[in-house]
Amino acid sequence: MIHCGIIGATGYAGAELTRLLLRHPEVGALSLSSTSFEGQSIEEVYPNLAGAFSKGASKGDGRLLPMAEVVAASEVVFSSLPHGLADETAAACLEAGKLFIDLSADFRFGADEATFSKWYGKPYGRPELHALSVYGLPELNRARIAKARIVGNPGCYPTCAALGLFPALRLGLADPDWVIVDAASGVTGAGREPSRSTHYPEAADSLSPYKVGEHRHGPEIAAVLSEMAGAPVGSVFTPHLAPMGRGIVSTNYFRLTRPIDAAGLRAEYAAFYEGERFVRVLPAGACATNRNVRLSNYCDISVHVGADGRTGIVVSSVDNMVKGAAGQAIQNMNIALGLDEAAGLAALPPAF
Amino acid sequence: MIHCGIIGATGYAGAELTRLLLRHPEVGALSLSSTSFEGQSIEEVYPNLAGAFSKGASKGDGRLLPMAEVVAASEVVFSSLPHGLADETAAACLEAGKLFIDLSADFRFGADEATFSKWYGKPYGRPELHALSVYGLPELNRARIAKARIVGNPGCYPTCAALGLFPALRLGLADPDWVIVDAASGVTGAGREPSRSTHYPEAADSLSPYKVGEHRHGPEIAAVLSEMAGAPVGSVFTPHLAPMGRGIVSTNYFRLTRPIDAAGLRAEYAAFYEGERFVRVLPAGACATNRNVRLSNYCDISVHVGADGRTGIVVSSVDNMVKGAAGQAIQNMNIALGLDEAAGLAALPPAF
Amino acid sequence: MIHCGIIGATGYAGAELTRLLLRHPEVGALSLSSTSFEGQSIEEVYPNLAGAFSKGASKGDGRLLPMAEVVAASEVVFSSLPHGLADETAAACLEAGKLFIDLSADFRFGADEATFSKWYGKPYGRPELHALSVYGLPELNRARIAKARIVGNPGCYPTCAALGLFPALRLGLADPDWVIVDAASGVTGAGREPSRSTHYPEAADSLSPYKVGEHRHGPEIAAVLSEMAGAPVGSVFTPHLAPMGRGIVSTNYFRLTRPIDAAGLRAEYAAFYEGERFVRVLPAGACATNRNVRLSNYCDISVHVGADGRTGIVVSSVDNMVKGAAGQAIQNMNIALGLDEAAGLAALPPAF
Amino acid sequence: MIHCGIIGATGYAGAELTRLLLRHPEVGALSLSSTSFEGQSIEEVYPNLAGAFSKGASKGDGRLLPMAEVVAASEVVFSSLPHGLADETAAACLEAGKLFIDLSADFRFGADEATFSKWYGKPYGRPELHALSVYGLPELNRARIAKARIVGNPGCYPTCAALGLFPALRLGLADPDWVIVDAASGVTGAGREPSRSTHYPEAADSLSPYKVGEHRHGPEIAAVLSEMAGAPVGSVFTPHLAPMGRGIVSTNYFRLTRPIDAAGLRAEYAAFYEGERFVRVLPAGACATNRNVRLSNYCDISVHVGADGRTGIVVSSVDNMVKGAAGQAIQNMNIALGLDEAAGLAALPPAF
Repeated sequence: MIHCGIIGATGYAGAELTRLLLRHPEVGALSLSSTSFEGQSIEEVYPNLAGAFSKGASKGDGRLLPMAEVVAASEVVFSSLPHGLADETAAACLEAGKLFIDLSADFRFGADEATFSKWYGKPYGRPELHALSVYGLPELNRARIAKARIVGNPGCYPTCAALGLFPALRLGLADPDWVIVDAASGVTGAGREPSRSTHYPEAADSLSPYKVGEHRHGPEIAAVLSEMAGAPVGSVFTPHLAPMGRGIVSTNYFRLTRPIDAAGLRAEYAAFYEGERFVRVLPAGACATNRNVRLSNYCDISVHVGADGRTGIVVSSVDNMVKGAAGQAIQNMNIALGLDEAAGLAALPPAF
Repeated sequence: MIHCGIIGATGYAGAELTRLLLRHPEVGALSLSSTSFEGQSIEEVYPNLAGAFSKGASKGDGRLLPMAEVVAASEVVFSSLPHGLADETAAACLEAGKLFIDLSADFRFGADEATFSKWYGKPYGRPELHALSVYGLPELNRARIAKARIVGNPGCYPTCAALGLFPALRLGLADPDWVIVDAASGVTGAGREPSRSTHYPEAADSLSPYKVGEHRHGPEIAAVLSEMAGAPVGSVFTPHLAPMGRGIVSTNYFRLTRPIDAAGLRAEYAAFYEGERFVRVLPAGACATNRNVRLSNYCDISVHVGADGRTGIVVSSVDNMVKGAAGQAIQNMNIALGLDEAAGLAALPPAF
Repeated sequence: MIHCGIIGATGYAGAELTRLLLRHPEVGALSLSSTSFEGQSIEEVYPNLAGAFSKGASKGDGRLLPMAEVVAASEVVFSSLPHGLADETAAACLEAGKLFIDLSADFRFGADEATFSKWYGKPYGRPELHALSVYGLPELNRARIAKARIVGNPGCYPTCAALGLFPALRLGLADPDWVIVDAASGVTGAGREPSRSTHYPEAADSLSPYKVGEHRHGPEIAAVLSEMAGAPVGSVFTPHLAPMGRGIVSTNYFRLTRPIDAAGLRAEYAAFYEGERFVRVLPAGACATNRNVRLSNYCDISVHVGADGRTGIVVSSVDNMVKGAAGQAIQNMNIALGLDEAAGLAALPPAF
Repeated sequence: MIHCGIIGATGYAGAELTRLLLRHPEVGALSLSSTSFEGQSIEEVYPNLAGAFSKGASKGDGRLLPMAEVVAASEVVFSSLPHGLADETAAACLEAGKLFIDLSADFRFGADEATFSKWYGKPYGRPELHALSVYGLPELNRARIAKARIVGNPGCYPTCAALGLFPALRLGLADPDWVIVDAASGVTGAGREPSRSTHYPEAADSLSPYKVGEHRHGPEIAAVLSEMAGAPVGSVFTPHLAPMGRGIVSTNYFRLTRPIDAAGLRAEYAAFYEGERFVRVLPAGACATNRNVRLSNYCDISVHVGADGRTGIVVSSVDNMVKGAAGQAIQNMNIALGLDEAAGLAALPPAF
């Protein structure tokens, strides 16, 4: 049984990791760290978890400890800190032979420090680690993840958009010159801290684009799409805040490089993702929506062609907190440790 | 491994049973019936379940069969039909030695046919069965459920209100003369059929009382409260439709029979429910809310005393589709079959 | 044409006053004050108002000025500051012959300083003013408001509950010994400042009781109900936060003092409120809901009797920002200035 | 004072027309027709309107009459029937010298019967009328509307997208070869009839693309954009259903034909729409959202350039029931009758 540690356990991604790892069949112990709530129990911070640690057989006592204690106790360390703080912990884990999975942006850009520092305003603390780290999108990098000791867990929007565009780009069906990623996220994507834009009376009943042309997931999307295409992809990304809790819906547009109808394009997608346990290519007539993937690790994809006959329209959807964060991190752990890739991720999305 | 059958699998309670039983560790096979969708796969009706039957190791093929086939194949039959249709199937199951768990109102009134027929407009089809059946509220009737072959699964509002009032009534802390149950349900409580009041533009952003003084759960609440008190309880029940998906919040008022403060009343509740795995009595300062029980089988209870010092105010909350329907039905099955009472019900409520 | 001033114009009540007074036919000029945003335009703080001042014929320039300037310029001063800060401004207005309408709690308790200071933690700054002030519930105090120079605008919950109970108490139909007010408010009731409980991912899809037995509107409700009854009323008040923007729904319970059915009770209510332009007593079969009063100054009331035949259940609903705050403040101004009571309040509630 | 008639008064567009015309200062009488509710009062069908006709000074009695009576009584006829039913009434109005404003799709395609019949499955009943009719988008066709007797009120999505793209296309800033219109609508856009996709438990908390490549507003958008550009525009349109009541947000993408930054593009837009009373071009830093236009006739537009420097991204937003339907219809009436264009449309959008 594995001993897992979570740094930043009281943020939303940390809380979701906690919930999922408590029910992971291979995880025997769970240690939690939080700067803001050190010394308290996570059951006080998240009353939905009341009794999860304190009652009956458990994987720990739910106490929020200093970071160093959690790292020392754990074989696998999940880090969910603000951007720019992970390098030292990653180094310590690497040295101690632990698996380090980072949910911030710190290890998403590999050796490309220039892009990271431009968009996140900080240099790499330990550049040599970034050459070793792997971008943790299993459908793209499964083999590399299996050998990795440092995994940069992808952003939520990039996970969703990249899975939606992967077949079209890899198979040369999409013109890489100009790809549009128009995506919307539920408000959990903004994290746990209250703010004006997440204040219920202003977020409810409202769809709001934000950071148009300026969102930090833009360069991450460009990088992963280019890797998928094997050539530079000109992508334009526009995020929206949608009045819902969980979920991302990404509507992706590209010019088809050859005549193909929706059925043909869908068949290419279905064949491409054959065998992927968390990607569901939907049948004709269905559209991907966050409704059908909530609380699961699935990415649903629906494939369409525009009325103009020359535009591919692919809708992809994930739960931003699961496949877009905590679930994918666990999937990465499973791969890196040689476990069943779906261990702890069996939850079916509820219909309502 | 158990073979379960669900009659009425495409209604909301049936769909929730399907989702939960697919992950129940003691259930090996699942047969589904639906009148409206016979011959289709449940994956078509509920695309959230795509692949749950058709991909990988499964508990069946998800095909929607005629009722008789499902009954014949199953050791445990869950029935979720409109009220008044269960008696014949119950009789057939009883004769064949199967466990029958009914999610309609048909077996909630035991031998009291008068009340059932007054509120549901039908006589009992097989009155003799109702003398044998047990009202499936485990916290009240666990020992009887363990021996039952026909279980009447309680209504969602009655489950929530009764668990909130049980200690006060049983311990004589509440004056039974006048108890107020003011409760609100999410819109899933109205079931799968679209209607004016569940049309998004009219249900959203609106809190609406309905059937004031006329709701069928009123007499069921009165009956269970009276059984708990060991004497007639004068209860008034007002339901509201709240703009949320899942969950019931019941705010229950009663006159205290002796001076006691909130801490004292809370201590009585905590002691009373000691050992109950699905009831959580909250600490001082917390209020029960559907947020913290969603998608779980928990009933959260917060205990308060009014500013007047003489009014007990107990807030109880359940997920109407889990503890208020499908989850409690599974809990009843577990008890009746001698399984771990929590088998298949381990899901933790998500924080968001 | 009247020159109105708003102190605290960038809070939610202030913003709503601004929106309504901009379209009030008797208001010719509007001066606004805000501590937090002094020097900015209200159009920057509230982009929904873009152009309302800066484009075309207008009632000012929308600039947020120091409080003293606003008071000096205005004939009517609406004050919407945090509790405990209004006395000095009220005194200045009184001396200068201006009408002062306060939307905080400061002038809601009249001469009863003890209750105010117990619940709000402050003594009166100018006790003599409070003997002069009038509680601004027009249906109760219209004649006194007509002569008032200082009006304490009622709280949102008290407005809603009191209008729902007024006929029953005044007509002696309700036993005053024990009245239950179970009410829910939309999240705008919490004001403009973001917080944990108003954070969209935690407020959405959730109904949460709060401050049970401890809410400051409890004593205000007790006071106004007692004034209505002409005798002390034992009231218990429980507020809930509901996942909606605007609106309060108050479900009020009382013991009937004599046998009367729902039709009879409804007829008493209808006769009592005959001639009130903002109270609508609904016909049999309808239930009051915030949906039908949103963005209007209406209070809808539906009248029911419990299945026990001895409990009156009256549901009342207002828009907390209009009849529960800004609209009622304007109604009070209209009365105090001898204008048409409905001037500026003609907006019909939208259906959706 | 004008006598207006509404055919199809109990649909959502009809109900919104009723609400707005009741407060239009130049409208003296209002006659209503409904097939489904003939003989009832609209106050029964829409209880938000309780008293609007029956109490005090009014514009009629709210009774729902046969269509012929409404046409006979009215000088201006608004028709909001299902598609394909307007021609005969339009002909009757034309002959009688009445103004006819149609809110269905029947008169949106002018002389292009081929496109209409392809997408709506019906030929024109009276082809000669369509050559006379005007597409009622005032910002494009104001002069023609002023002389029109038959106005085809635009669809909600086309109104929103076209206003967002008009300056870029007319000024030659957008490459017309490939324009992407990615838009989301609140659920009121689906109308008053309940359905699976508008059932609250399935529409809430979910963003769902629908009719991808197949929506009937696609050809209408193509037509109006082409007219704006003076050349064929290759447009791709994807609608989404968003969990909100009112509002459309359209995120529109195009390739810039010459180097220009966001400030420059925004300045072009601001100059282009100078003098338009219902179009607000937002300042830098703001994004258009349905929140800020709700219940008003405004179209808000924010102008951006992608991180690639070559993509124009323009976000436009309207209230689908006002500028996208009833409000624009009234604006068209005002223009056609020579009234103040904003008469009856002065409502400011609420902040919350």
